[in-house]
Amino acid sequence: MSTNSRSLDLEKLVSLCKRRGFIFQSSEIYGGLASTWDYGPLGAELKRNVKESWWRTMVLGRDDMVGLDSAIMMHPDVWRASGHVDNFTDPLVECTVCHKRWREDQLEGENGAEPVCPDCDGKLGASRMFNLMFKTFMGPVEEEANVVYLRPETAQGIFVNFSNVVTTTRRRPPFGIAQIGKAFRNEITTGNFIYRTREFEMMEIEFFVPPGEDEEWHQRWVDESLRWYTDLGVAQERLRVRAHDSDELAHYSKATSDIEYQFPWGWGEIQGTANRTDFDLKAHTENSHESLSYFDEESSEHIVPYVIEPSFGVDRAIMTFLADAYTEEEAPAASGKMEKRVLLKLHPALAPVKVAVLPLSRNEKLVPLAQEVHDAIRSSGAVGGLVQYDDAQSIGRRYRRQDEIGTPLCVTVDFDSLDDKAVTIRQRDSMAQERVPISGLVDQVRKLLI
Amino acid sequence: MSTNSRSLDLEKLVSLCKRRGFIFQSSEIYGGLASTWDYGPLGAELKRNVKESWWRTMVLGRDDMVGLDSAIMMHPDVWRASGHVDNFTDPLVECTVCHKRWREDQLEGENGAEPVCPDCDGKLGASRMFNLMFKTFMGPVEEEANVVYLRPETAQGIFVNFSNVVTTTRRRPPFGIAQIGKAFRNEITTGNFIYRTREFEMMEIEFFVPPGEDEEWHQRWVDESLRWYTDLGVAQERLRVRAHDSDELAHYSKATSDIEYQFPWGWGEIQGTANRTDFDLKAHTENSHESLSYFDEESSEHIVPYVIEPSFGVDRAIMTFLADAYTEEEAPAASGKMEKRVLLKLHPALAPVKVAVLPLSRNEKLVPLAQEVHDAIRSSGAVGGLVQYDDAQSIGRRYRRQDEIGTPLCVTVDFDSLDDKAVTIRQRDSMAQERVPISGLVDQVRKLLI
Repeated sequence: MSTNSRSLDLEKLVSLCKRRGFIFQSSEIYGGLASTWDYGPLGAELKRNVKESWWRTMVLGRDDMVGLDSAIMMHPDVWRASGHVDNFTDPLVECTVCHKRWREDQLEGENGAEPVCPDCDGKLGASRMFNLMFKTFMGPVEEEANVVYLRPETAQGIFVNFSNVVTTTRRRPPFGIAQIGKAFRNEITTGNFIYRTREFEMMEIEFFVPPGEDEEWHQRWVDESLRWYTDLGVAQERLRVRAHDSDELAHYSKATSDIEYQFPWGWGEIQGTANRTDFDLKAHTENSHESLSYFDEESSEHIVPYVIEPSFGVDRAIMTFLADAYTEEEAPAASGKMEKRVLLKLHPALAPVKVAVLPLSRNEKLVPLAQEVHDAIRSSGAVGGLVQYDDAQSIGRRYRRQDEIGTPLCVTVDFDSLDDKAVTIRQRDSMAQERVPISGLVDQVRKLLI
Repeated sequence: MSTNSRSLDLEKLVSLCKRRGFIFQSSEIYGGLASTWDYGPLGAELKRNVKESWWRTMVLGRDDMVGLDSAIMMHPDVWRASGHVDNFTDPLVECTVCHKRWREDQLEGENGAEPVCPDCDGKLGASRMFNLMFKTFMGPVEEEANVVYLRPETAQGIFVNFSNVVTTTRRRPPFGIAQIGKAFRNEITTGNFIYRTREFEMMEIEFFVPPGEDEEWHQRWVDESLRWYTDLGVAQERLRVRAHDSDELAHYSKATSDIEYQFPWGWGEIQGTANRTDFDLKAHTENSHESLSYFDEESSEHIVPYVIEPSFGVDRAIMTFLADAYTEEEAPAASGKMEKRVLLKLHPALAPVKVAVLPLSRNEKLVPLAQEVHDAIRSSGAVGGLVQYDDAQSIGRRYRRQDEIGTPLCVTVDFDSLDDKAVTIRQRDSMAQERVPISGLVDQVRKLLI
């Protein structure tokens, strides 16, 4: 019955996200702000669930990881030491005719000719390196001494706190520090909805290992990262691992492997695991004159660990989960006629609304019982997310609405419920229905949501 | 026995926070960045718990609230319409001698004389209004057309999405939109640890009500906000509500009530509930030419709702919970001698480490059993936070360490455990110990953590 046709195009997803309150264009009433997006009521829950699931897997569920939450604004010397002031650049060219600006390395000339402006075919000016860090001034004077940058990655907040974490937690490599937070890159070109934006959120781990164990840990983290997506239901066949060619590597990296997802527009990076070697800790030691190392009891030496960095985009993860969950299929409507059904097959841990409670109609006896059922599920704590009550429109339209926002379970209260003290649970994907006594409902809901 | 002496001074708290990994100075190895702080492994968990507790109470637990997560960068017209470009300023004066800059309204002249520089007694220059918004440039050209501001409050992200939320959720006032996120204010003076910083996190609600119901809802939200702190254990007698005098009110406010906490340095605002009237929605309607109203079926009119805004500082909440939980008391040590005990009486929902599992010693039989117990508690899901295993140092020192980081429960595995398959649960505040069979441990832990 289910075709799970990959009939998804980006417009469909953007439209669903807006219509259902997942994602809105930022500042839309003012015409929007280029490639900036706001998460609506359902999107905010989805985002919370993605981050919570990651933190539970990567931090709370492991013995070798601790968390951190460092500030977006850091001392500017951090970015000099890390190489970002000098190297975090893209080549920028400006059209001499229409003055639009382009990333030179993304332009291709036809038949080997020099590239021209993609908009107006005008001649392009000379290329210059453009630094992608947003800068601002801290304190009341706009002068060079007061420049601070918005972090383009959360990683450096981890490196500069290495000694503080080692001292306070008594950890020794192999162990990791994880954090989730906003980062900012003043990209020359953006696009593909929430895939490439200037403001975005990251989930990053810096995993410190004894030198020599780095390649083994690198592979292990590629595998574990991949597993996070597949455990949350992403189709294996739409994921692939791609190792960077040596000429693609960032200035700090010995090896990087990307996890890519097959989006409607093609394969796109959603996660990267870099072997940053001891580059960052050594650079910060040199620049700050504070030793960033650990004491190895076996060799009685101070050692600078190697760093494996699994780095996840929150917004790209959301894009992945939404694109992968989007399904169109033919299903029988209430009339028995086959109709197109749109559903989001989101993992229950990610679904914004976990359970919807629906009285068959707005009958004066059904409504109070349905509200009682709703309150019982919500207050039980069985569900770590939204429990929605909905009595508007026909039951068929309400099912379709819940399918489209990915609600795993609908609980329907009908006239029989008044007599048999039982309700019907309908499962999103199979549309299977089962009758459950209200007294055992919370337990059954808990079981079905795992 | 417990004195709960308010012997707390700020230095003690800052020192504990650093020593135990709650809060570090940001970019410390580079000498720090003025008034910027990073949350360490325990602080990151505490912060997560504060935000999660707020979201569960204010969003998931209510029928009249939805969530939102809007971007930090917004269209600059948002800040012109909201009045922030014109009015979000402080009066700034510069010393003509040492060139230090001060907030004029915080200086007081002695005996009614003109104020002088608090640092060098130098003469102060003319006062000018300084806008507190951080600005940066979006896109590759630093010109006025590309200026964007870092939001100084999350509220405007809610206002500009009002229609999108109403349409997608079919809500009508009274209802609220809540969000948690970073905001930035380029304060002239900062201080008191994480209390006043330039980068901070907010938990804000914009609660939309029919005009005329605003004063009633204002009072209700002051009460509900206060209850959030007291439900999480903050002492009632260190909290007070203070209504703003009319000359203190922000440009958008009809009435504002602050919740203040008695910090070591005096009373300080930790939450504010403002009656923003219809100021913001009307201002955005006028500037964007998009109507921000709802259709009232009873009167068949389009109505611009009034807005009640309960606004909480995340960092100030953390400061409050830490300061309020800090306790010194005399308690018997293992030797029977009375000793000073430092503990954080954090509510279990807030404590970063929920349970610590401690083998009495590093004995080869105790360690595997203790690890088994640790894994059983962690994998049970009974605990929504860290479960720590610790076998370093004497049991007395480990208890003291767990007391000092606020761990509600210690589970001790001793030699009797090998025979009786039972362990000892020690409660942080009472130091009461009870013997519990390992088979019933998870249930007992769950019960004690509520």
